[in-house]
Amino acid sequence: MAIHHFQPTHYYTAIGSHPPVLHLASGDSVVTTTVDAFGKDATDQEVTPRGNPQTGPFYIDGAEPGDTLVVVLDRVSPNRPIGYTRSVVAPNVVDPAYVRELPVPGLVEWRVDSKSGTATLLKEDTKLGTLTIPLAPMLGCFGVAPSKNQAISTETSAEHGGNMDYRGFIAGVTIYFPVFVPGALLHVGDGHATQGDGEIVGTGIEISMEVQFTVRLIKGKRIRWPRGENNKYIFTVGNARPLDQAVQHATTEMLRWLSEDYGLDTISASILLGQCVEYDLGNVFDPAYTMVCKLPKVLLPALQTIRAS
Amino acid sequence: MAIHHFQPTHYYTAIGSHPPVLHLASGDSVVTTTVDAFGKDATDQEVTPRGNPQTGPFYIDGAEPGDTLVVVLDRVSPNRPIGYTRSVVAPNVVDPAYVRELPVPGLVEWRVDSKSGTATLLKEDTKLGTLTIPLAPMLGCFGVAPSKNQAISTETSAEHGGNMDYRGFIAGVTIYFPVFVPGALLHVGDGHATQGDGEIVGTGIEISMEVQFTVRLIKGKRIRWPRGENNKYIFTVGNARPLDQAVQHATTEMLRWLSEDYGLDTISASILLGQCVEYDLGNVFDPAYTMVCKLPKVLLPALQTIRAS
Amino acid sequence: MAIHHFQPTHYYTAIGSHPPVLHLASGDSVVTTTVDAFGKDATDQEVTPRGNPQTGPFYIDGAEPGDTLVVVLDRVSPNRPIGYTRSVVAPNVVDPAYVRELPVPGLVEWRVDSKSGTATLLKEDTKLGTLTIPLAPMLGCFGVAPSKNQAISTETSAEHGGNMDYRGFIAGVTIYFPVFVPGALLHVGDGHATQGDGEIVGTGIEISMEVQFTVRLIKGKRIRWPRGENNKYIFTVGNARPLDQAVQHATTEMLRWLSEDYGLDTISASILLGQCVEYDLGNVFDPAYTMVCKLPKVLLPALQTIRAS
Amino acid sequence: MAIHHFQPTHYYTAIGSHPPVLHLASGDSVVTTTVDAFGKDATDQEVTPRGNPQTGPFYIDGAEPGDTLVVVLDRVSPNRPIGYTRSVVAPNVVDPAYVRELPVPGLVEWRVDSKSGTATLLKEDTKLGTLTIPLAPMLGCFGVAPSKNQAISTETSAEHGGNMDYRGFIAGVTIYFPVFVPGALLHVGDGHATQGDGEIVGTGIEISMEVQFTVRLIKGKRIRWPRGENNKYIFTVGNARPLDQAVQHATTEMLRWLSEDYGLDTISASILLGQCVEYDLGNVFDPAYTMVCKLPKVLLPALQTIRAS
Repeated sequence: MAIHHFQPTHYYTAIGSHPPVLHLASGDSVVTTTVDAFGKDATDQEVTPRGNPQTGPFYIDGAEPGDTLVVVLDRVSPNRPIGYTRSVVAPNVVDPAYVRELPVPGLVEWRVDSKSGTATLLKEDTKLGTLTIPLAPMLGCFGVAPSKNQAISTETSAEHGGNMDYRGFIAGVTIYFPVFVPGALLHVGDGHATQGDGEIVGTGIEISMEVQFTVRLIKGKRIRWPRGENNKYIFTVGNARPLDQAVQHATTEMLRWLSEDYGLDTISASILLGQCVEYDLGNVFDPAYTMVCKLPKVLLPALQTIRAS
Repeated sequence: MAIHHFQPTHYYTAIGSHPPVLHLASGDSVVTTTVDAFGKDATDQEVTPRGNPQTGPFYIDGAEPGDTLVVVLDRVSPNRPIGYTRSVVAPNVVDPAYVRELPVPGLVEWRVDSKSGTATLLKEDTKLGTLTIPLAPMLGCFGVAPSKNQAISTETSAEHGGNMDYRGFIAGVTIYFPVFVPGALLHVGDGHATQGDGEIVGTGIEISMEVQFTVRLIKGKRIRWPRGENNKYIFTVGNARPLDQAVQHATTEMLRWLSEDYGLDTISASILLGQCVEYDLGNVFDPAYTMVCKLPKVLLPALQTIRAS
Repeated sequence: MAIHHFQPTHYYTAIGSHPPVLHLASGDSVVTTTVDAFGKDATDQEVTPRGNPQTGPFYIDGAEPGDTLVVVLDRVSPNRPIGYTRSVVAPNVVDPAYVRELPVPGLVEWRVDSKSGTATLLKEDTKLGTLTIPLAPMLGCFGVAPSKNQAISTETSAEHGGNMDYRGFIAGVTIYFPVFVPGALLHVGDGHATQGDGEIVGTGIEISMEVQFTVRLIKGKRIRWPRGENNKYIFTVGNARPLDQAVQHATTEMLRWLSEDYGLDTISASILLGQCVEYDLGNVFDPAYTMVCKLPKVLLPALQTIRAS
Repeated sequence: MAIHHFQPTHYYTAIGSHPPVLHLASGDSVVTTTVDAFGKDATDQEVTPRGNPQTGPFYIDGAEPGDTLVVVLDRVSPNRPIGYTRSVVAPNVVDPAYVRELPVPGLVEWRVDSKSGTATLLKEDTKLGTLTIPLAPMLGCFGVAPSKNQAISTETSAEHGGNMDYRGFIAGVTIYFPVFVPGALLHVGDGHATQGDGEIVGTGIEISMEVQFTVRLIKGKRIRWPRGENNKYIFTVGNARPLDQAVQHATTEMLRWLSEDYGLDTISASILLGQCVEYDLGNVFDPAYTMVCKLPKVLLPALQTIRAS
C-alpha cells in the first residue's frame, strides 16, 4: 500500500510493451504528472513530441494475461493555469457537404483556475465574451499494453483502453482493464480540464496534470473490454468505428458482467437493461469512437442479494 | 386557443399525406388517445394492426412547406395498467458472434401504476424478482408528413420525425418539426411508460396513452431536422444509420440553430459546443438510429443578449 | 404475351401505390420511355420535376404479396443525343477533411452516340480533352411499390428496389422483386448512358431512354431483397447504410437463395461462397448504399443436378 | 539487382519495427517462403503460433519516412498440396438476426494442385461433391512498419498495408507503400491459394507459399495509402470500418494520385472517375475492412501525354 512519487523523464505516443518506469504492488498508489496532448508540461514548455504522450508504463507485480487490473483515479488535477482547445468542430462530425462551411481550426487559450474550479475563454474575437465554464478534470488517454506484442498509437483506442476521450474518467472513478502482458504496463496521459461529449472539436481543454492513482489486481478474472464504476453506475466501454460497433462491444461486455458477477441470465439482463440502461458518448473524433454502457447501481442491491445467495 | 377532444377510429402505420382527422389553429390543443405499438387500446384489445399505429393526422391551418411546426407535449399519460416489453436484447446491439447466445425473445408484462409512478415486472421466472422501476412516459413515434409525397413506415425515422424512440420526448418538452406539406399533418403514437437509452430490446414498456399536445406555427422558419427544448436544454435530433451519420445530422442542425437564432459564427459555436455539448442516444434498434445533440440553456442567456442586440 | 406500347404523361418521384397506368399479364412486354433524372424527355425538355421521375406504375395481374415479380430488361436505349453528369465527386465519398478541396459541382454535357456506342465529353476546359468512353446503358432507379402503404422517395432504395444506381442493370438482365402489394406496381426510370461503380459524382450520364421490358410472375415465391441474373452470374442486392449492412442484406439473401433453390445447407453454401463469391458496388451516393453479391453460374450446374434430384 | 534467397526462422504477428532479417538495395529481389495463417509451413507442420505470421522484416537500404516503397510480386506459389478454409460465413457478414442460423465453423481441407492450377474440396459431407475451382494465389497480409513506433496486429490493416485480404494481390502486381520508418521494414505472409471477394468465411484457402518479390525505392515521394497497378488498372487501397470509410480513403488517394502524377485537377479527375471508376471489395471480415478504387489504364495514355508535357 505504498505511495510512490514518480516524475517522468520520457513519454510514449504508442501504448505498448515499453520498459517499465516503476514496479507497483497491488494496492500501491502513484503520484505523478502528465504532459498535455501537445507534449507541454506544467510550465507550458514542450518537453516531448505531441500526440497524447503517456507517462509510464507502470509494471504491476504479479499481473499476468487473463487477470484484471483495477485502477482508481484518486486525483486528476490540472497543474498549470493555461489550457488549449481547437476552435472548429471536426469535419467528421458534420454532414459531409457542410464541411465546406468550416474554417480551418486554430488553437484557443483558456485560463484554468483550479481554486474557483472554472475555465475562462481567453480568445477575444468570438461571440462568447469571457465564457466561463466549470472544470471537470479527466484523463483522455490511458490504458495497458495490448495483446500480440502490439504497440497502438495514442491517437486511438481498443480493448486495452487508449484514447477514449470519455469525460466520465474523472477523479473517483474505478476502471478495470484486461491484462494482456506480464505486469499489465499501465500508461496515463492526455489530461483535459473539461470536455464536451464526443470531443467534437478534437480536444478537451488540453492541460498538464498531477495525477494520483491506485492499482489493484484481480487474479484470474478475464474481461474483454474496459469496465468501470463510480458512485452511481457500473459501466462498460466499447471502442470502434462505426459507433454502432462501439455500442455492440459495450453492450455485450455489460451482458457478460451481469452474467458473471450478478448471476443474470440473458433474459433477466435484457429485461433490466432494456428499460434502465444509459449510454454515454465518449469520443467521435479519434480513429476509434467510444460508447459507454451504464447501469445505475441503485438497481444492483437486489441483484447482489442474488449474487450472494 | 381551443382545446379539442379527439377520439381516433382508425390509425396509420406509415406517416404520410393521409386525410386529416381534425383541423387545428396555431395555439390549439388536442386531447386524444394513442394505441400501443401492437395496436392495443386502453382496454388492452387489439383494435388496429401492429407497428406503431398513429393517431391523426392533424392539419394545422396555415402551415406550409418551409414553416416550422411547434408541438408541446402537455401530457403523456398511460391509460391502462398493463404494458409490454420484449425480453431479449436485439441482435444488432451485441457483437455479431454473440448473437448465438441470445434466446428467441418473447413478450413480458409489466403492471403500470400511474398513481405510484412505477412499473412492476410481472414475469416470475427471472432473476429480477418483482423489479419495480419509475415511470417516465414518453412518445416513441410521432412526426409530420414527409416531403415528396412520401409515406414513411412508422418503423423508422427521418427529417420528419417518426420512430425516434428517444426517451427525452416526455411531457413538458417542446418539439420543432420542419413542415413539408400543407397543414403539416401531425401524427402521434407509440407510447412507452418508460424506456432505456437505445431501446435495445426493441421496445419500451409499450402502452396506450392519453396525450395532450399544443401546436403553434412559426411561419417562414425553415429547419432541416427536428429540434426541441426542455427546461434545461435546447436539442437537435438526427436520424440515420450508422449512428455516426445521426451524430452528423444532429450536430450540423445545432450549428445552424446557433447561427440563425443566437448569432454564433462557426468558430464561436464550435468553441462552445466543443467543451459543453452533450449527446443522448435515442434508438439503436430501428432502421434509422437516433442521436440527440444537446446544449445546456444555462449557457444561452449571454447569447440571447447578443441575439437581442 | 402481348407487347404494349405505353407513352407516359405523368411521372412519380416516390415509388408507391399510385393508380396504375396499364395492366399487364404475366409474360407481357412493354415498350415505353423514361425521362432523365432531371425530368427531361427525348427532346431535352423538362416535362416533370426533377428527382428520378418514374414511368408507371404497371399493374401485373394476379400479383399478390408473397409472390415474386420477374422483370427482364429487354432493351435500354438512350433516345436522345445529349446526357449530363455532375462534375465533382460527392462529399461523402472522400475523407471528411478533404471535402474542403472540392469545388462546387456543376453539370457537364456529353454527346451520346448510340450508333458508335460512345459518349464524348463536351466540356472544353478540362484536362480530359474530348474524352470518349463506351456506352453501357442501364436503369438507375426502378422497383415495385413497397410494403405498409409506404411511398418511398426515388432518391433512395430498399427491399422494393428503387434508386440502386447499379451499373449491372443493363439490357439482358433479369431482376426478381418481392411483391408487397396487389399488382406489384412496377415503376421504371433514371436511365444512365453509362456510370462508374458507386455513382460517386452523384450521377451517371443522365439521359432519357426507350425501354422495353417483359414481366413474369412466380406465384407463392417469397423473397426478401431484389435478386437477379445475367449470362454469367446469379446475384442478390442489398440496399442500406453503412455499406457493411448492404453487404449483410445481400449475403443473407444469397444464402437463402442457395438454400431454397439449390439445396445448399449453410456450410455448403459458405464453402462455395467463401472462395468464389464476388461483390459489386452499386451506389455510395444515395441515402441507402447498394452492394451486389454475385455467384458465377458456371458453379451452379452441378448444384442444379442436386436441385433436380 | 541481386536476388537473395532467404529462409525464415522466426515470424511476427504484429507488423512493426522488428530487427530486420536482411538488407536489400533498391532493385533487389528476394525469394523466400511464408507459412500459412495458422503458422504451418510447407510440410504442414505448425512452426510458429497462428495469426498470419509474417516473414521478415526486410530493410530496404536508403528508405526513409516520406519515401515510397515499390514492391513487385514476381511469384506467389503454393508450396504444399494442402490448404484450409473455414466452413461458415462470418457472423458480421449476415443480417444480425440471421446469425442464429449459422453453425459453429470448422476447418475444411482442400487439395491444392499447382500443376493443374486447381483446388479440390476434400470434405465429403457437403452438397458440393468434389468441387474443383481454379487457383489464384495471392498474399492476404503484407506491409511495412507503421508510423509512431506502432506495432499493428496482422489481424488488421491500415495505411501501412497489413491484413487487407484483397484477391487482387497476385503475381505480377506492383504495390506502392508509404515509408514510415528507416528501411521501410517490409513484412510478407498469409498466402491464399484463392479467395472470394470479402474473405467472408474469414479465410481464403490458407496455404504456405514460395514468394519472390522485387523492391524499388522512390525517394521523396509521399503517399498516404497503399497504391498499386497491374496490366489493366491503377488502383488505391483504403482500410477502415465501416466500408464507407474505406471507400473514402481509397477514393481520396486516387484523387491525389491523379492530381500528382497525371495533372488532373479535381473536376477533371471527378468527371473521369465518375463514369469510369471501379471498386473491388477486399475483406469484410478483419477489424479493418478493405476497398480498392481502380481506374482502367486504357484511360491513362492521353493523360500521360499531359503528364509528360
